[in-house]
Amino acid sequence: MRQQRMLIPTLRDVPGDAEVASHKLMLRAGLIRQLSSGIYSYLPLGLKALQHIQTIVREEMDAAGAQEMLMPALHPSELWKASGRWDVYGPELMRLEDRHGREFALGATHEEVITTIVKDEIQSYKKLPVTLYQIQTKYRDERRPRFGLLRGREFLMKDAYSFDRSQSGLDESYESMYNAYDRIFTRCGLNFRAVEADSGAIGGTDTHEFMALADIGEDTIVHCPSCHYAANLEKAVGQLPAASASSKQSDLNAKPQKVHTPQVSSIKQLSEFLQISPEQIIKSIAIEVNGTPVIVLLRGDCEINEIKLKNVLGGSEFTMLSEAGIHKLGSVAGFIGPLGLPNIKIIADTSIIGMQNAVIGANEADYHLTHVHVERDLVDLTYDDLRNVTEGEHCLTCGHELSFAKGIEVGHVFKLGTKYSRSLGASFSDENGAAEPIIMGCYGIGVSRVLAAIIEQNYDERGIIWPDSVTPFDVHLLTVHVQDEIQLKLSTEIYKTLTAAGYSVLWDDREERPGVKFNDADLLGFPLRITVGKKAVEHIVECKERRSGDQYELTTEQIAAHCQTFFQTGGRSSHE
Amino acid sequence: MRQQRMLIPTLRDVPGDAEVASHKLMLRAGLIRQLSSGIYSYLPLGLKALQHIQTIVREEMDAAGAQEMLMPALHPSELWKASGRWDVYGPELMRLEDRHGREFALGATHEEVITTIVKDEIQSYKKLPVTLYQIQTKYRDERRPRFGLLRGREFLMKDAYSFDRSQSGLDESYESMYNAYDRIFTRCGLNFRAVEADSGAIGGTDTHEFMALADIGEDTIVHCPSCHYAANLEKAVGQLPAASASSKQSDLNAKPQKVHTPQVSSIKQLSEFLQISPEQIIKSIAIEVNGTPVIVLLRGDCEINEIKLKNVLGGSEFTMLSEAGIHKLGSVAGFIGPLGLPNIKIIADTSIIGMQNAVIGANEADYHLTHVHVERDLVDLTYDDLRNVTEGEHCLTCGHELSFAKGIEVGHVFKLGTKYSRSLGASFSDENGAAEPIIMGCYGIGVSRVLAAIIEQNYDERGIIWPDSVTPFDVHLLTVHVQDEIQLKLSTEIYKTLTAAGYSVLWDDREERPGVKFNDADLLGFPLRITVGKKAVEHIVECKERRSGDQYELTTEQIAAHCQTFFQTGGRSSHE
Repeated sequence: MRQQRMLIPTLRDVPGDAEVASHKLMLRAGLIRQLSSGIYSYLPLGLKALQHIQTIVREEMDAAGAQEMLMPALHPSELWKASGRWDVYGPELMRLEDRHGREFALGATHEEVITTIVKDEIQSYKKLPVTLYQIQTKYRDERRPRFGLLRGREFLMKDAYSFDRSQSGLDESYESMYNAYDRIFTRCGLNFRAVEADSGAIGGTDTHEFMALADIGEDTIVHCPSCHYAANLEKAVGQLPAASASSKQSDLNAKPQKVHTPQVSSIKQLSEFLQISPEQIIKSIAIEVNGTPVIVLLRGDCEINEIKLKNVLGGSEFTMLSEAGIHKLGSVAGFIGPLGLPNIKIIADTSIIGMQNAVIGANEADYHLTHVHVERDLVDLTYDDLRNVTEGEHCLTCGHELSFAKGIEVGHVFKLGTKYSRSLGASFSDENGAAEPIIMGCYGIGVSRVLAAIIEQNYDERGIIWPDSVTPFDVHLLTVHVQDEIQLKLSTEIYKTLTAAGYSVLWDDREERPGVKFNDADLLGFPLRITVGKKAVEHIVECKERRSGDQYELTTEQIAAHCQTFFQTGGRSSHE
Repeated sequence: MRQQRMLIPTLRDVPGDAEVASHKLMLRAGLIRQLSSGIYSYLPLGLKALQHIQTIVREEMDAAGAQEMLMPALHPSELWKASGRWDVYGPELMRLEDRHGREFALGATHEEVITTIVKDEIQSYKKLPVTLYQIQTKYRDERRPRFGLLRGREFLMKDAYSFDRSQSGLDESYESMYNAYDRIFTRCGLNFRAVEADSGAIGGTDTHEFMALADIGEDTIVHCPSCHYAANLEKAVGQLPAASASSKQSDLNAKPQKVHTPQVSSIKQLSEFLQISPEQIIKSIAIEVNGTPVIVLLRGDCEINEIKLKNVLGGSEFTMLSEAGIHKLGSVAGFIGPLGLPNIKIIADTSIIGMQNAVIGANEADYHLTHVHVERDLVDLTYDDLRNVTEGEHCLTCGHELSFAKGIEVGHVFKLGTKYSRSLGASFSDENGAAEPIIMGCYGIGVSRVLAAIIEQNYDERGIIWPDSVTPFDVHLLTVHVQDEIQLKLSTEIYKTLTAAGYSVLWDDREERPGVKFNDADLLGFPLRITVGKKAVEHIVECKERRSGDQYELTTEQIAAHCQTFFQTGGRSSHE
C-alpha cells in the first residue's frame, strides 16, 4: 500500500486524556479514534492488526474442533429474564425498546442465546459434544471506561461455548480450549500467564484467567517462580512465614490478661501502644450475613479476601456489622474479640493457627486481652483460607517464595456446569432415553483488548514494536526523496519484489521531510524498515530492525533473502 | 469437516412462517435460525457462505483502492442531530440511553461517523481522494421485517464512503465503486442489473441500484432488452405508444363542450359512461404543497409517480387537497379540470402533450368538458415526467419496447455531494489555502441480503444449488455405510486427498439411512457430491453434480483431476 493515500493520521503529541502507553500509542499511530467514551473506530492500520489477531484466534479455535457461528447483538429480554440475569446484571447491560415497545438487551455475552439455540437443535447424546464460537461485538456499559481498548463499552470478543454429556466430557472440552488459548496468546507474542481464578458460588468449578503481564494491569497475579502455580489474588493461596520471634517463651503459661488501651482501636495504634508487631495481634471483624452476626478472625498483618469469605459463607452477600449491632452483641466497635461473646458464629483464617501470646479485643471500651494462646483459649474454631496472600508468603506446592505481578485479563475459561442449561431447559436424552441437562463451559477472549495488551508489552519511547504475527505491515519501505527518480525507481522495484514474495509492505511515498518519515516509521513500528536514500545509485538500501534497533546496509539483490531469514527466525507465523 | 459433530440441523418440513424460497431453504438447510423478528443467528454453514461473500467484497474493494476500517454501532445522538437525521429518520432508527442518560443511536448507516472522522483527520487536498469502507452490523427497526435475511432488523452491510476535492473526482470514485460492484455481484454468481435510481431532492445527482432479479423482489425494474437502459420504477422513463385511434378527426374543430355526467367521477366510470378509452381523458389531481394548491394533469390511463412529482416540486412534501380545499378553489371533488380555475399553478405530465378531443372535469358537480384540444385550450402548461412507466412503453434511447422485472436491491451507489460535509463541517483546504467542503459518495452492499438473493436464484425442489464461489463446502463426501470398513477407509483417503489439494470437504460420516444422507446432500447443495458405497471394494465412487444433476462413476485415481476440471470450468474463484 502507498502511504500517501492511506488514512494513517499520526500525531506528534500525546493526547491529553490517554493515561496508558497502549492507548497513547494507538491514538498517536493512527490505529484508533474515539467516537464516545469507551467507543472507538478502528482506522485502517488498527483494523489490520485486529484482523491478524482474529485470524490467529480462528485458526486455533478451528484446530481445536470448535465451530464458528455468528449470533446477533439484539437479544429479546425474555431470554435474559429466563436465566435471571435481566435483573442481576445491572446498568452494565444496555437495554432498549423496539418500535413496538418490546425490550431488548445489547448482548454483553451470549450464554442465553447459544443455550437457546442448542436447546432447540440438539436433543440427543449422539450430537454431543460440540463447541461453538463466534467473534462478535459486545456491549457493556462500564461505569468507568478507560485505558482505550482495555476497558471499552463496545468491543470485539471471541466467545465460545462447549456442550457436553458428562463432567469428564466438560473437563476434556475445557482442556482443549485452555490449550488453544495457550497457543493463541503465544502466537500473539504476549507475555502471559494462565492463573487460577475464583469461579464464584454459582455452579462452576474450575476457571482460569489468561493474564497478559503489565504494570498497568488492574488484576494482581500471584505466581511461583519455581513451580507452575499461578492464581489471581481473589483465589491465590500461600503459606505465611513462621510467626516472628516476638513470642516470648517466658509468657507461655500466662493466662489472658486485660490491659488498659485507652482509645487504641486500630491494629496500627495497638501495635505501637503495646510495642508489638501486628503479627502478634488477632483482628476480629464483625459482619452480618442474612441478618446473623459473624465474627471473622485473622492475623493483624493480613487483609481479608472478600471473595474467599463470600465462598465460605456459601455464596451469601455480607456487610459490616453496624456499631449498634456490635453493641447488641455485648461488645464495642474497635474492641471486639472472640472471647466472652456467647452464641455467636466465629470463623477464623488459617493465619491465626497456633498463635501464642496474641492480643485480642476485650469486648469492653479501651481494653484488650494479652497472652492469648489460640489453641488453648479459642477452642472449636473452624479454620478457612479467608485472607489475601501477601508478599513474603511461600508456595503451598513447592515452598518457594511467591511473586506478585499485575496483569490484564485477555482470556477466561470457565466450567459453567448446568446453570444455563437448567434455567433455559437445554437437555439431551442419553443412551437410555433419559433427559439430562447439558453440561456447559464458556470461554472468552477480549480480541480488541488483546490488541491493546500486545502494544502495552511492546513499545519504547519512539513508538510501537509490533510482534511479527500481528503487525499491520511486515515491511515499511521508506523513500527519502520521492522526487529523486533513481530512488523512486528503486523503491518501486523493491515494493514489487517484496509484495510478490508475499510480504505486506507499506510504502512511505509521501513528500515529507525525512525526519518526519523516520519518526513515523518508528512510531508505526513494523518489524523491518527499508530506506531507499542517496545510495540508491549504487543499489544499496538501509535496513533497520525495529525491535533490536540494528541498522545495516543491503544491496537490492540481498533484500528478498534477508527478509526470508529475518521473518523466519522471528518466529513469524503465516498470515495473509 | 466431519458432519457427525457439526451443527447442521436440517429440517424435513418447511417452517410455517417462511414465505419465500431463500428463507425456507436457509432454515431447512440449517444455515440460520431466528432469534426474534428480523434477527437471526448464522449457524456454521450459513456463516461460511457469508464469509465467502465477505472475502469477495473485501478483495474487490481493496483492488479498487478502498481502505477497510471498522466503526462502532453505538453513535452519540449529537452526530445525528448535527446532520438533522435524528428527527427525520423516524422509528426505524433504534435508540437507547446509556447509564448516564446520554442518548445513542444504533447505527443504521455511518455517514455521520465517517464524516466526523474525516473532518478531524483530513484537512488538506493532499490527502484526497480517499475511499473508506467497512463490513459491519447495521440496525434498522423495519416496520415489517420479512423474507428472512432479505429484510431484517440486524444485518451485515458493507458500506463505503468516498471523499473527493471535485465533482470530477467524485465521478471517478463513483465509477470505480460501480465497477467493483459489478465484479462483486458477478463473482457471487448473481443474475443482476445495475439500474438508475432516484437520487431524491437532496444534493445527490447520480445513483444506481444493483438489483438481483427475482420474482419475489420488492422493487420493479424497467429495462430495455435492446440497449443498456435500466432503471427502477421510481426513476424509469419511457415513451407512450401513439395515442389510440379514438381521436376522431371530424371533431378537431369542435370547441370544448359541457356534458352532463351525473355521479360520474372516476376515470373508469367516465370512460364507460362516455364510451371512450381512458387514454382520451385527462386526469386532474389537486394537491397541496406548503399550503398552496396545485393541479397535476396526466393521461387517464397513467399513474402518478410520487417521487418524480416530489422532485419536480423541489423536494417538497405534498398531500392531496381536501374536499374543502377543492371547494375553495371554485371546483368540486371528482370534477376538477384545468379550465376556468383562476390563479392556480398547473403542472402536466408529458403524457397529455398533443391530446385532442380529450375530456376534462368542468369544475362543476356532474359535468365534464369534451372536445378539449390540449395545445389550443391549455396554453402555457409546464410539462414534466410525472408518471410511472407502464408496460407497452418504449425505450427513450433506442425505441424498443421496455421490459419489466422484479428485483432485490443488493447494492446501491450514490453521489452524496456535500450534504454531510457541510452539516458536519468536513472541509479541506485547496492549493490556494481556501476551505472547500469535501465532496462525498456512499456505496452500500447488503452482505447478508446477498446471501439470501443468491439462494433465491439458485435452488430447485430438492434444495439449494450453491455457486462455486460462495458454497460453504466444495465437496460433499458421503459414506453410505460408515460401519463398512472398506467404505470408511476409502472415504478417509479421499477426504485427505481432497483436503490436501485445497478443497473444502464436508464428510457425511453419520450413522443415518442412505436416503436421509442423499436428501440432506441435495438440500445443502454443495457443487459436487462424491458417494462412497458398495463399489468401494473396486475403488469406484459415484459423483453427482448438484447443478446439472449429472451422475457418473469415477475411480479414486480420477477424483483429484476431475475436481480440478470441474471447479475450474465452473468459473470458481479462489477462496480459503
